[in-house]
Amino acid sequence: MTSLQLPRRDLNFLLYEWLGVDALTTRERFADHSRETFDAALDVAEKIAADYFAPHNKKSDANEPTFDGAQVHLIDEIKTAIDAFSAAGLMAAQHDADLGGMQLPATVANACMAYFMAANVATAAYPFLTIGNANLLLAHASPEQINTYVRPLLTGRFLGTMCLSEPQAGSSLADIKTRAELQADGSYRLFGNKMWISGGEHDLSDNIVHLVLAKIVGAEGKMLSGVKGISLFIVPKKLVNADGSLGERNDIALAGLNHKMGYRGTTNCLLNFGEGKYKPSNSTGAGLGAIGFLVGEPHQGLRCMFTMMNEARIGVGLGATMLGYTGYLHALDYARMRPQGRSAAVKDPDSPQIAIIEHTDVRRMLLAQKSYVEGALALNLYCARLIDDEKTSVDEVVRHEATLLLDILTPIAKSWPSQWCLEANSLAIQVHGGYGYTRDYNVEQFYRDNRLNAIHEGTHGIQGLDLLGRKVVMQQGAALTLLAREIQKTIDQALTVERADTRNFGLSLQTVYKRLLQVTEALHRAGDMNKTLANASTYLEAFGHVVMAWIWLEQSLAATKNYDETDRDFYHGKWQACKFFYLWELPKVCAMIDLLQALDTTTLDMQDAWF
Amino acid sequence: MTSLQLPRRDLNFLLYEWLGVDALTTRERFADHSRETFDAALDVAEKIAADYFAPHNKKSDANEPTFDGAQVHLIDEIKTAIDAFSAAGLMAAQHDADLGGMQLPATVANACMAYFMAANVATAAYPFLTIGNANLLLAHASPEQINTYVRPLLTGRFLGTMCLSEPQAGSSLADIKTRAELQADGSYRLFGNKMWISGGEHDLSDNIVHLVLAKIVGAEGKMLSGVKGISLFIVPKKLVNADGSLGERNDIALAGLNHKMGYRGTTNCLLNFGEGKYKPSNSTGAGLGAIGFLVGEPHQGLRCMFTMMNEARIGVGLGATMLGYTGYLHALDYARMRPQGRSAAVKDPDSPQIAIIEHTDVRRMLLAQKSYVEGALALNLYCARLIDDEKTSVDEVVRHEATLLLDILTPIAKSWPSQWCLEANSLAIQVHGGYGYTRDYNVEQFYRDNRLNAIHEGTHGIQGLDLLGRKVVMQQGAALTLLAREIQKTIDQALTVERADTRNFGLSLQTVYKRLLQVTEALHRAGDMNKTLANASTYLEAFGHVVMAWIWLEQSLAATKNYDETDRDFYHGKWQACKFFYLWELPKVCAMIDLLQALDTTTLDMQDAWF
Repeated sequence: MTSLQLPRRDLNFLLYEWLGVDALTTRERFADHSRETFDAALDVAEKIAADYFAPHNKKSDANEPTFDGAQVHLIDEIKTAIDAFSAAGLMAAQHDADLGGMQLPATVANACMAYFMAANVATAAYPFLTIGNANLLLAHASPEQINTYVRPLLTGRFLGTMCLSEPQAGSSLADIKTRAELQADGSYRLFGNKMWISGGEHDLSDNIVHLVLAKIVGAEGKMLSGVKGISLFIVPKKLVNADGSLGERNDIALAGLNHKMGYRGTTNCLLNFGEGKYKPSNSTGAGLGAIGFLVGEPHQGLRCMFTMMNEARIGVGLGATMLGYTGYLHALDYARMRPQGRSAAVKDPDSPQIAIIEHTDVRRMLLAQKSYVEGALALNLYCARLIDDEKTSVDEVVRHEATLLLDILTPIAKSWPSQWCLEANSLAIQVHGGYGYTRDYNVEQFYRDNRLNAIHEGTHGIQGLDLLGRKVVMQQGAALTLLAREIQKTIDQALTVERADTRNFGLSLQTVYKRLLQVTEALHRAGDMNKTLANASTYLEAFGHVVMAWIWLEQSLAATKNYDETDRDFYHGKWQACKFFYLWELPKVCAMIDLLQALDTTTLDMQDAWF
Repeated sequence: MTSLQLPRRDLNFLLYEWLGVDALTTRERFADHSRETFDAALDVAEKIAADYFAPHNKKSDANEPTFDGAQVHLIDEIKTAIDAFSAAGLMAAQHDADLGGMQLPATVANACMAYFMAANVATAAYPFLTIGNANLLLAHASPEQINTYVRPLLTGRFLGTMCLSEPQAGSSLADIKTRAELQADGSYRLFGNKMWISGGEHDLSDNIVHLVLAKIVGAEGKMLSGVKGISLFIVPKKLVNADGSLGERNDIALAGLNHKMGYRGTTNCLLNFGEGKYKPSNSTGAGLGAIGFLVGEPHQGLRCMFTMMNEARIGVGLGATMLGYTGYLHALDYARMRPQGRSAAVKDPDSPQIAIIEHTDVRRMLLAQKSYVEGALALNLYCARLIDDEKTSVDEVVRHEATLLLDILTPIAKSWPSQWCLEANSLAIQVHGGYGYTRDYNVEQFYRDNRLNAIHEGTHGIQGLDLLGRKVVMQQGAALTLLAREIQKTIDQALTVERADTRNFGLSLQTVYKRLLQVTEALHRAGDMNKTLANASTYLEAFGHVVMAWIWLEQSLAATKNYDETDRDFYHGKWQACKFFYLWELPKVCAMIDLLQALDTTTLDMQDAWF
């Protein structure tokens, strides 16, 4: 049987043979670490994911959270799993030793998180959001707030959320209506409804730290319009006393749970802030509302929230990747053990049936999955490696460039796995045939779970607008120029190697990425933002495939560099998946670029009445 | 609010303005019909679908069939709906007046069925399978069998199934093991296990007529190998007495229900034949087994079954289409009423939000859906129109050509909607944002339901092998040559019209379909069937898009011919959807043809150990 857990062999290749993560131990922050300590962290993650997360993945899908009007009920295994995660110190894997953290590089911490997302993406969402929440506070909160909230977040005593959307404001955050009223003591009272809050209510932890976007009510009861008016608040489920003990319940009421197609183990909530359901006993009439504490400066809320959002987007990409990856491993296992049919050339019906992996079309589906999921994981860990450079490189230029590359790659790291690792999950179902469509097998759940990822933390369309409308043009195109330089470096290297196909792939990539640069310019010369952005989703998809081709060329070169005859199958697998990507996937980009180059207005011209 | 039911305007366009179905009334078989009677049938279907099928679509998804070890339980609404369907005479919509049928053209009958599949594909599966079962028997059974089984099938007193797969033999029918032993009275006793039997057990009807593939045990207990050994049997759930009354229960035991991702209202069963659970009282020890009756000649079972299978494949395509269509209508409705955000050019955050249909990216998603679902419905009704020609044209050449075109288009009519109308459902979710991912809305169910269609009645891969391995080469390529002639006819017509884009699209299609013909030849010159068929799925997809481009050009021409200023929006919608298909979809084919032309062996070369 094929192992159904993320293969350490691939992780080792990505972390050590390609990204050189062991070299990070020369940096001061990681001086106490070594490849051994990294491996030990991965071992712990692998084991806890296998022992506590994977076993209830199906059960929590079949038994989604319920709300009896007073309390939310989850299956017990979720709390046990999160407690095991926290107890192992994984909530603070990346954080300062001063805060009780392991001070691991982001690259290693993300690789650890990959195990949990592969095992049970819905349960992993609670720690994932908590870590993002803590990181935001570490970046923007006061020392006192860090002490009060971050420390318990990093031990799992508190869990965290992000509260952005409202029923009338999903993608359009400028339209949020939640208001915050300043009190004499410097705190705020919040009133409003927040929608789609993952982990918004549960009994998994002593407390829940909500990070809430709201608009401060100014003079004459007015609020600033648009995104500029948004501020960020800590609004805890239970108030925290000065000594860290918990006080009364804050006025945050669960109005209902969303019932989802997948990702069911994660509660997803409509929360009412300040509706009066829970009135702290010290409230006077004027003091009604959920008690909140401003984070950072007023009106800087969206900027602060994007610290968490960017991390969340890369995390969403990692979740999508790991759903795809685990689906691939399940499909591979099934294909190796399921006998069915004979090869096209065999005529004798009495010959034994062959395993379906022998059928070319099944191999196509497996190879496509491999190219999507291994490619996506590589991109994700590459982004994590950039986070390490951004945070810990001693070279200012390296830090600055890492930030730029992260900025431009974030929409890709989020959207590409959400699209293609979902496709991988569809192929995993297809490999299973009818069995794959049943809940007796696992792959249909992965497909349902993964369909969320193109929606939350900024839809596919939003990622396209972010990439084409902001990222490629910011700072006079500095990020795009830098990315192009990095891609060209890889191509230059590819052109020097012996393998003819690697050289050819380098030339293919060169042609395509240069066309992408040209079309970027052409789109921004259109002179009408509606026209420029009309086909931003197509631009996002073309861009994503170019990035993934680059990442595959990188992997192919790393395979050449580290090739070891005793492990030949592994390296041949990398080369063949790279080949698949260049011959089967990259050519799809041409039609997209043609369409973009033509400034096609078919969708822009379409009229409501014509539908 | 947008109507959520299949718009009659589109049906009228397809049936009357394009396919000229009213002209069929000049044929003897349809002499009693007129456009009025066709419309009346459509009215009945529309109303029953709305009144009895749509209301329980969500309920039967949330309350799937259960098996208590003795009986299967379904929600009551399913039986009520099927009874209403039968009472309206729709089970016999196409059948002879002698058999109590309406003698409607297949085109009109399929259009009627479209309403039911749009309203509730899982409940519609029971009549759909029953009609296919009756049609098979009408083509191959004895007059006595027709009397005994078909008459009650056509009134809905009996329902029908097709029993092909077995646990060890899904796509590989050559490997079925169910055996049939001839008895002295000319009947057979069957022993074996059948898997994936939709409608295999329920209490919706007095009886269930199973059509079962099995191998006859010959001298020395041997069975013929491979598909050549397969025969077809009627195996009723309850035996039928000479007077039509029901006798004892036959030995067919439900071993379990499959629990599916979607399509939940349709029971899907593992059935054990002849395991001894139900022993008819007249059985002696030697006579154990499920009692079956041979249909047609021995060893012709697969050929007979393909009468039903081909019909089922087109029906699967229609089901996929209607799931896509209804999802599109839901997305359109949502997009028109949901306010969110502002256009890219508007900077004032205090300006009112706009309906999301105003966002170009949402229009893209809607227009893509429109091009997929209206295109798929057109292809499906075109195929039904070919069935009418095949069965009722007075011209032998027309009949022969209709058969050939049906042969080559069946894999497309099955696979294309299964792929692209599923994509439409994914886009419908995306238009809804987070709401689309919840079960409070309808679109996530359509997506789950639709994912089955690329699997059952021959997977996507099987359709590719059928198309490239058999259909394009059969009779020295007669079907392909004929299809090419029909496509060229449409192009020639397109080149004469005034609209410049129609002419351009004609030229685009000409270039692409000719390349497809060349690549077909190249693939069959490869000299190694493994190589020829290696990329058959890609061939299927390229072929499907070419066919769909042709169907869209046909629709565009019909719009030009029938254009009416008072209904201008409708015709502009057709032109714009055609334009979308030519500019956004058809170009995707080029990369596929390049890959095929290169006889790419990337997947063929991939080795098991490299995964």
